[in-house]
Amino acid sequence: QQALGSSAAKRGMTLEHELNLSNQYYLSVDRAVIHKKPTPIQLVKVDYPRRSAAVVREAYFRRPSTTDYNGIYQGHYIDFDAKETRNKSSFPLKNFHAHQIEHLRHCLKQGGICFAIIRFTNLGQNYLYPASKLIQAWDQQDTGGRKSILLTTIQTDGFPIALGLQPRLDYLAAVDQLLETIKHKGVDYE
Amino acid sequence: QQALGSSAAKRGMTLEHELNLSNQYYLSVDRAVIHKKPTPIQLVKVDYPRRSAAVVREAYFRRPSTTDYNGIYQGHYIDFDAKETRNKSSFPLKNFHAHQIEHLRHCLKQGGICFAIIRFTNLGQNYLYPASKLIQAWDQQDTGGRKSILLTTIQTDGFPIALGLQPRLDYLAAVDQLLETIKHKGVDYE
Ligand SMILES: [Mg+2]
Ligand SMILES: [Mg+2]
Repeated sequence: QQALGSSAAKRGMTLEHELNLSNQYYLSVDRAVIHKKPTPIQLVKVDYPRRSAAVVREAYFRRPSTTDYNGIYQGHYIDFDAKETRNKSSFPLKNFHAHQIEHLRHCLKQGGICFAIIRFTNLGQNYLYPASKLIQAWDQQDTGGRKSILLTTIQTDGFPIALGLQPRLDYLAAVDQLLETIKHKGVDYE
Repeated sequence: QQALGSSAAKRGMTLEHELNLSNQYYLSVDRAVIHKKPTPIQLVKVDYPRRSAAVVREAYFRRPSTTDYNGIYQGHYIDFDAKETRNKSSFPLKNFHAHQIEHLRHCLKQGGICFAIIRFTNLGQNYLYPASKLIQAWDQQDTGGRKSILLTTIQTDGFPIALGLQPRLDYLAAVDQLLETIKHKGVDYE
């Protein structure tokens, strides 16, 4: 037995933790209602002690069938996943699972505002990257396309997210920019 | 140790199961993307065996901070909880937790389409009940209001959900009626 969290999980928790704090802040000022979904667990054995809470004694992590975050922002359905990479010049697409891409594809079709939040841990940089562009890159892998998205491409088609105090990660400012871009450039970003 | 599910849980799983099947169907025909959120679990001990999957050895159920279901339907953010009662003439408000009502209140403010799906198990009847009306009833408890919502009130202000084969519970047909009602009656239902 070991403490929760490999170094990968710890890195993941940092971005996740900052997003959770930001979401708490957004909720507290009525700006948006966005939550991280709990990790899905397959329960196998549960104890029900007489006078205390049920205890899970055997369970396994399941692969989520959706992205981690969703909610509502001023009438817009918001859906995204958060990913970190230690790479310095590109984001490897293998950080996504096929089912997450399919989920984003379905949400886009329904008119959702969908994206990835990508952190380059070694650069200390965070970007909102539109799901439409992510899906393009994903699909092009099959026809000889790159297995990663260049940082320069992310800087061109995405939106930087500033680090701050309150909220820690003001990603809704980047969503505002995405909404403006969709309004002006339309289908390419939708 | 006992098998998962008291009779209450079993009843809960039935409505939940039917909703999950309906959501799968809606997804398969590109009508909506709506999922049940996983139950939140507080992990305490996790084993990481060398060559196999991580095993949760001690964990506890946490109270969810939101409702169970959300997603997107033709551009609308959808948020609801599903509740069952064995009562025959009213729905007891104690089936809701304060934090769920607060969550619905926040989502309504952002422009979400929010409601409860209420099953009267002993009557074999299912209703969509708008969150605006639910919140009214909830708030009126403090000023001498009823601790339950009468079935007749639910029939007046809510929308019946038909049982079928595909989808099992066509609750989006009831959502369509709610959307029409919001369009015509406005703020009262929003
Ligand atoms: Mg993730
Ligand atoms: Mg529930």
